[in-house]
Amino acid sequence: MTALAEAGRALAAEAARYAGMGWMRGTSGNLSVVLDRDPLRLAVTASGLDKGELTETDVVEVDAEGGAVSGGVPSAEAGLHARIAAISGAGAVVHVHALAPVLAAQRWPGGVPLRDLEMLKGFGRAAHDDLVTVPVIDNGQDMRVLGEAFQRGYRADTPALIVARHGIYVWGADLREARHRLECLEWLLRFTLGTILDGS
Amino acid sequence: MTALAEAGRALAAEAARYAGMGWMRGTSGNLSVVLDRDPLRLAVTASGLDKGELTETDVVEVDAEGGAVSGGVPSAEAGLHARIAAISGAGAVVHVHALAPVLAAQRWPGGVPLRDLEMLKGFGRAAHDDLVTVPVIDNGQDMRVLGEAFQRGYRADTPALIVARHGIYVWGADLREARHRLECLEWLLRFTLGTILDGS
Amino acid sequence: MTALAEAGRALAAEAARYAGMGWMRGTSGNLSVVLDRDPLRLAVTASGLDKGELTETDVVEVDAEGGAVSGGVPSAEAGLHARIAAISGAGAVVHVHALAPVLAAQRWPGGVPLRDLEMLKGFGRAAHDDLVTVPVIDNGQDMRVLGEAFQRGYRADTPALIVARHGIYVWGADLREARHRLECLEWLLRFTLGTILDGS
Amino acid sequence: MTALAEAGRALAAEAARYAGMGWMRGTSGNLSVVLDRDPLRLAVTASGLDKGELTETDVVEVDAEGGAVSGGVPSAEAGLHARIAAISGAGAVVHVHALAPVLAAQRWPGGVPLRDLEMLKGFGRAAHDDLVTVPVIDNGQDMRVLGEAFQRGYRADTPALIVARHGIYVWGADLREARHRLECLEWLLRFTLGTILDGS
Repeated sequence: MTALAEAGRALAAEAARYAGMGWMRGTSGNLSVVLDRDPLRLAVTASGLDKGELTETDVVEVDAEGGAVSGGVPSAEAGLHARIAAISGAGAVVHVHALAPVLAAQRWPGGVPLRDLEMLKGFGRAAHDDLVTVPVIDNGQDMRVLGEAFQRGYRADTPALIVARHGIYVWGADLREARHRLECLEWLLRFTLGTILDGS
Repeated sequence: MTALAEAGRALAAEAARYAGMGWMRGTSGNLSVVLDRDPLRLAVTASGLDKGELTETDVVEVDAEGGAVSGGVPSAEAGLHARIAAISGAGAVVHVHALAPVLAAQRWPGGVPLRDLEMLKGFGRAAHDDLVTVPVIDNGQDMRVLGEAFQRGYRADTPALIVARHGIYVWGADLREARHRLECLEWLLRFTLGTILDGS
Repeated sequence: MTALAEAGRALAAEAARYAGMGWMRGTSGNLSVVLDRDPLRLAVTASGLDKGELTETDVVEVDAEGGAVSGGVPSAEAGLHARIAAISGAGAVVHVHALAPVLAAQRWPGGVPLRDLEMLKGFGRAAHDDLVTVPVIDNGQDMRVLGEAFQRGYRADTPALIVARHGIYVWGADLREARHRLECLEWLLRFTLGTILDGS
Repeated sequence: MTALAEAGRALAAEAARYAGMGWMRGTSGNLSVVLDRDPLRLAVTASGLDKGELTETDVVEVDAEGGAVSGGVPSAEAGLHARIAAISGAGAVVHVHALAPVLAAQRWPGGVPLRDLEMLKGFGRAAHDDLVTVPVIDNGQDMRVLGEAFQRGYRADTPALIVARHGIYVWGADLREARHRLECLEWLLRFTLGTILDGS
């Protein structure tokens, strides 16, 4: 099996998992893994398909600008995946449309503050005395503009980016680490929204 | 396999999926696909059955008024399905009792406004500078009255209709497109309700 | 297979379904079907077991007072099941600990009003101009006291009873009708609670 | 099969169940069962693994201080598991990151009061006239400090401990009793939070 097909299989399994959680409704969201570093090559889920029904061939190889290297239609957002992978050194980037991050970005448009919560350890940070601010950038369709906004706010210790009124990106060494970080961060954002709701 | 049986099988699979999402509780909701255009014929899920347990024979062929063509008891709402298919040209119409649309209609009885949200692309609209108003009509038992209300508010670029204190209709070229649009719209309505709850 | 074993199998399948919905957490809730009318005999789920793991033998036959007829430990609530079956003529009674009914009873301790909602049809009532008041009674451990309270508020057209700070009973001709009514009523109660939350 | 492997199998099955409920997101949470009393030995889930994918070998034997007895990396929280088992006499301790307990601790930092609720019976208490206060302690990384705080607030009739901004511990004679108590308590906490949300 080629590296691209192997990546496609892993991406399909991961996408089905997220679809089952309701985080990839319709055909929304996209996932990627890095195939090569020099030059940068990523395997990205193909565009416009049901994320619960991908197969190993529903994957496109893209370059550092998110352009298709050898056929297929990558997600328009492949360019942002590539930028994130290039800047952060991540091996996998996941972009899903979970609800809590988008609600949190609406509430804290300048960045979502999280602090003194055990689950921050699952996001790679400390459980105490370590203010984490999840960056929020404006939505847009030009991935170079989003990429610039991402890069301006990038901190190596904060492996996530919320795109306002859109969704969230989280990254890690591989798909599993990215998922664990995403799951913990999504929990943290639900907690933070919940403390507002109950007035505490 | 006849076209009706094939439609019945597709409708049963789709209904089981929605039932699993909690959008067809009890025997609520109904789904249809267009079998013929001239004259208009639809395959509609049979009335009064558990939507998680339909088989390929739990389907009725109806005409443009929603009347049964060859036996079986169609849903009373078949007439609205047919009207929507006739006016919009859709190949599939889904009607489910998801909670968010009905809550949103309660909050915005004159139509639910949505704007500047990425998920609108999954509903067939633009992510920016494109005000989408999801029409809301009063509930009732006379499908001709509902059909007239639908038609008065119909816009070709807005493939959804909320019936207040009842449920939602969404349509598309086929069951999959209708589902993708429904999933995205339901997400958008939960987001919109959520922004009110957290006061942002 | 005896009638009791057959009932046990049906009750186990139904309980597993409710457990999967989160409506029978811990060992909470109990389900029954009528085996005989004269004298009244019911098959009730056995007490203290995980409702997601019942087998066809985890069932007890009880009389009109909820006493075991032939061995086994019935739920203490069997007496209320029997009373409901006797008064209403229902063939199946389900008692689950869904959250929305208990929250609704907290908000409307004198009975939960529902009106002008399509889902009321799935509860056996009209979608328009038909005020449904779901009775609420105080919780207690003496099933005769609860049974008296049920009987005082009983109306043949309202097949449900909420026990405050406890759970809900719904009944019907058989387990499926009881489930369909319960699913629709639970939806209605979530809707009603939701309209308060969003201030509409 | 050794006792440790048997425990590992039971812990893996239980962890997968909690992961499916969303209570062990990322690699969060840990479960234990007592292997021996004199001296105290527990089997604890291994650290840093996906709780939905454990196998029978992903388990570590620890002593009364939570130190590994024969290889493997136990969760840092093993020391608190051991302390709870020692003090309470429980045969199983489960620690999960369900959301409701952490939200409730935020709202009631001095302990979460619960009273006059049927589900308290599933937590081992009375349904009436029995005020239950679920202890809340501050989060921290030193398990001896947490253990002291636990012990100061310990009451034999209250088999749970919430660690603020972190998660919940619940214990019982075995994994099943611990689960039943946890499920009932989580329901009670959602109910209590819900009554605040709807203003009743």
